[in-house]
Amino acid sequence: MRMIDLIEKKQHNKELTKQEIDWMIKGYTEESIPEYQMSAMAMAIYFNGMTKDERSNLTMAIVASGEQIDLSEIAGVKVDKHSTGGVGDTTTLVLAPLVASVGVPVAKMSGRGLGHTGGTIDKLEAIPGFHVELSKEEFIKLVNKNKVAVVGQSGNLTPADKKLYALRDVTSTVESIPLIASSIMSKKIASGADAIVLDVKTGAGAFMKSVEQAKELAEAMVEIGNSVGRQTMAVISDMSQPLGNAIGNGLEVKEAIETLKGNGPEDLTELCLVLGSQMAYLGGVGNSLEEARAKLEENLHNGKALEIFKLFVQSQGGDSTVVENTDEVLPKATNKVEVQAEKSGVISTIVADQIGLTAMKLGAGRETKDSRIDLAAGVYLHKKVGDSVTAGESLATLYSNKQIDDTVKETIQANMHIADKAEPLKLIHEIIQRKN
Amino acid sequence: MRMIDLIEKKQHNKELTKQEIDWMIKGYTEESIPEYQMSAMAMAIYFNGMTKDERSNLTMAIVASGEQIDLSEIAGVKVDKHSTGGVGDTTTLVLAPLVASVGVPVAKMSGRGLGHTGGTIDKLEAIPGFHVELSKEEFIKLVNKNKVAVVGQSGNLTPADKKLYALRDVTSTVESIPLIASSIMSKKIASGADAIVLDVKTGAGAFMKSVEQAKELAEAMVEIGNSVGRQTMAVISDMSQPLGNAIGNGLEVKEAIETLKGNGPEDLTELCLVLGSQMAYLGGVGNSLEEARAKLEENLHNGKALEIFKLFVQSQGGDSTVVENTDEVLPKATNKVEVQAEKSGVISTIVADQIGLTAMKLGAGRETKDSRIDLAAGVYLHKKVGDSVTAGESLATLYSNKQIDDTVKETIQANMHIADKAEPLKLIHEIIQRKN
Repeated sequence: MRMIDLIEKKQHNKELTKQEIDWMIKGYTEESIPEYQMSAMAMAIYFNGMTKDERSNLTMAIVASGEQIDLSEIAGVKVDKHSTGGVGDTTTLVLAPLVASVGVPVAKMSGRGLGHTGGTIDKLEAIPGFHVELSKEEFIKLVNKNKVAVVGQSGNLTPADKKLYALRDVTSTVESIPLIASSIMSKKIASGADAIVLDVKTGAGAFMKSVEQAKELAEAMVEIGNSVGRQTMAVISDMSQPLGNAIGNGLEVKEAIETLKGNGPEDLTELCLVLGSQMAYLGGVGNSLEEARAKLEENLHNGKALEIFKLFVQSQGGDSTVVENTDEVLPKATNKVEVQAEKSGVISTIVADQIGLTAMKLGAGRETKDSRIDLAAGVYLHKKVGDSVTAGESLATLYSNKQIDDTVKETIQANMHIADKAEPLKLIHEIIQRKN
Repeated sequence: MRMIDLIEKKQHNKELTKQEIDWMIKGYTEESIPEYQMSAMAMAIYFNGMTKDERSNLTMAIVASGEQIDLSEIAGVKVDKHSTGGVGDTTTLVLAPLVASVGVPVAKMSGRGLGHTGGTIDKLEAIPGFHVELSKEEFIKLVNKNKVAVVGQSGNLTPADKKLYALRDVTSTVESIPLIASSIMSKKIASGADAIVLDVKTGAGAFMKSVEQAKELAEAMVEIGNSVGRQTMAVISDMSQPLGNAIGNGLEVKEAIETLKGNGPEDLTELCLVLGSQMAYLGGVGNSLEEARAKLEENLHNGKALEIFKLFVQSQGGDSTVVENTDEVLPKATNKVEVQAEKSGVISTIVADQIGLTAMKLGAGRETKDSRIDLAAGVYLHKKVGDSVTAGESLATLYSNKQIDDTVKETIQANMHIADKAEPLKLIHEIIQRKN
């Protein structure tokens, strides 16, 4: 086989076989296929796309490029969730104990990563003592005991994806549905997921700006998952304004605890119930999404989900009194600034990505790999789209251990638009299930 | 400037500016832009093409990447010819002295290269003593004296093209009209041409298989040339059957001499007159292509063109008695095989590329850079499309200093089809001139 012939096939819109894709990904991982040929291939895929079979085959070839986590010692269907990323996305902190509380094992491998805030691990580390350094044995034992545990990513998972992503990043080939879909799905499958729930975000604060794009990506991933034997569902959820009210690591932990107490923001609670229903249903709870949801709602209101959260925190060395004494236990910022409304009216838009960037600048997220996160930093929104506001009232509170400039305040004001009226936002745009 | 932004622009079909193209080609030549980004760009150009301005700017950026030959000491308009390559293309050997004979300076820089036969230099070296190792001063002196000289390519011309071509060759991005056009035109311009005549071949033996493709390429090149101040014309000529009767270095020298004596094959003679008229006209001879042609025809029949050929050979150390004692002076092959017609009829097709490959296998061309050429080897066709043939009559003679297998004979028979009748072939498909 020659890579140039494979590039030519894709260029002329012919389907690559499983053998060809396997050979290509193996050769690329082993560096017998050079970067310049793979970038030409990626650009040809950008223009001509990939068929259903090509996408599944590419995904599994990437899975085969590295280690695959064996979670067979964990009882039950291991359901994993993936979010395409947004601003103030606290769902994992809520979903993990919530879904575990109905008996579905949540064996979460998480990262830190770059972004507006840290990853799930950074957020959890806002709880004093919490750690994710677990051996594989401890991790499995904890999941079997509490139905939930979070561990840091380790091992050489999907090296082909790491290499390919780095290349796509510098050759303008990130925005290709088949390449995005196979990248995400390969990581979930290599991590040992039996079933997968996807939260595909759309709007200003998301990678997929339009519902159509988000739907195309969600459908591609649902199709890949189901075609390779992993039951997969997806939700298209709104990310035109930040999710919930908190953006920042400690702030989001607090918000998650409130949500698990049944007092969380409406949008965050609803999205957790929708995603949780899918996870629970795929994990074997209930005969329908509705039945699964009923059980989750019950555990949110009877305190069972919160109880699991306490156990989970305690089991991983964290101070579980955080549940009762939240403000005392979580890190506190030395600087705190209120952002006032300059006029009265109704909040019409909150530009999610700009709010996210502001949180990052306050210290909540990493700009580069070496940045240190300020776990107390972030933005807390007192108003969401549709809320009424009076001139002088606080729109948001900013937290940081750095000095907070007036320009930061102005950025928030400039990105929370006040008008006479507001169009209501739809939180859940669509549910994508397997096509029969 | 960042290369990724330029790739993205091209990907989204936006026009690259002159500054951007200059920066890109400079960076690529200096290796600050890596191969993997350039291959992504080449693939994006393959899909989205380039505008007229982009093509001209790319051409001149490639010219600027290396040395540029200064031919200003040569009196007159220096007209260069380029052929996109075919089988048995003896035109340069005829055109150079023919055009020189009407007073237009032909300062030819030629190469050896891979292919069915050698390049112009290899062909000329079939004449004992002929050499192309001339200093720049000798070369210019000879052109001013005889109006014609051939020198080997030297200097660091268009290094960006060399690098880009090598990359395109392994990333399936050779077949892109703007990239082919800028590659060819940049080399001619860097070689010092004031005006350019292009022979774009089409048919089985050519790179451009269809007339439409050939026309697109020719128009692109004519446009580039004229937009950067080099008068440029093109001919779309047929290469479905080999041009002339001879394919092989010494064989083609003999054919060129016959043509200069006025006894050449009809198609070769006609193509030389068509291309020659354009060269002469652009060189300032006559007020129309017709007037230029009349002067060329005159010099072909009165012996002046042949006289210039003799002078040219003599001036570069060659045995000029080759003109009179052609068979004695040119190298002789130890093996000679006749290929008989297996039935009677009319030659309906001669598959040019297969005949060319056969000539190469007999030793006439280089398969790799290190191959040694057998200057006596090749194929001489006794029949062309439309000719009648009787079973047993010789279709072709094969020459080689190697043993000639029966399979070679069979390949020729299989690629000279004999039928009841033949469609006549059109030699000149179109003349492409500047659009007003």
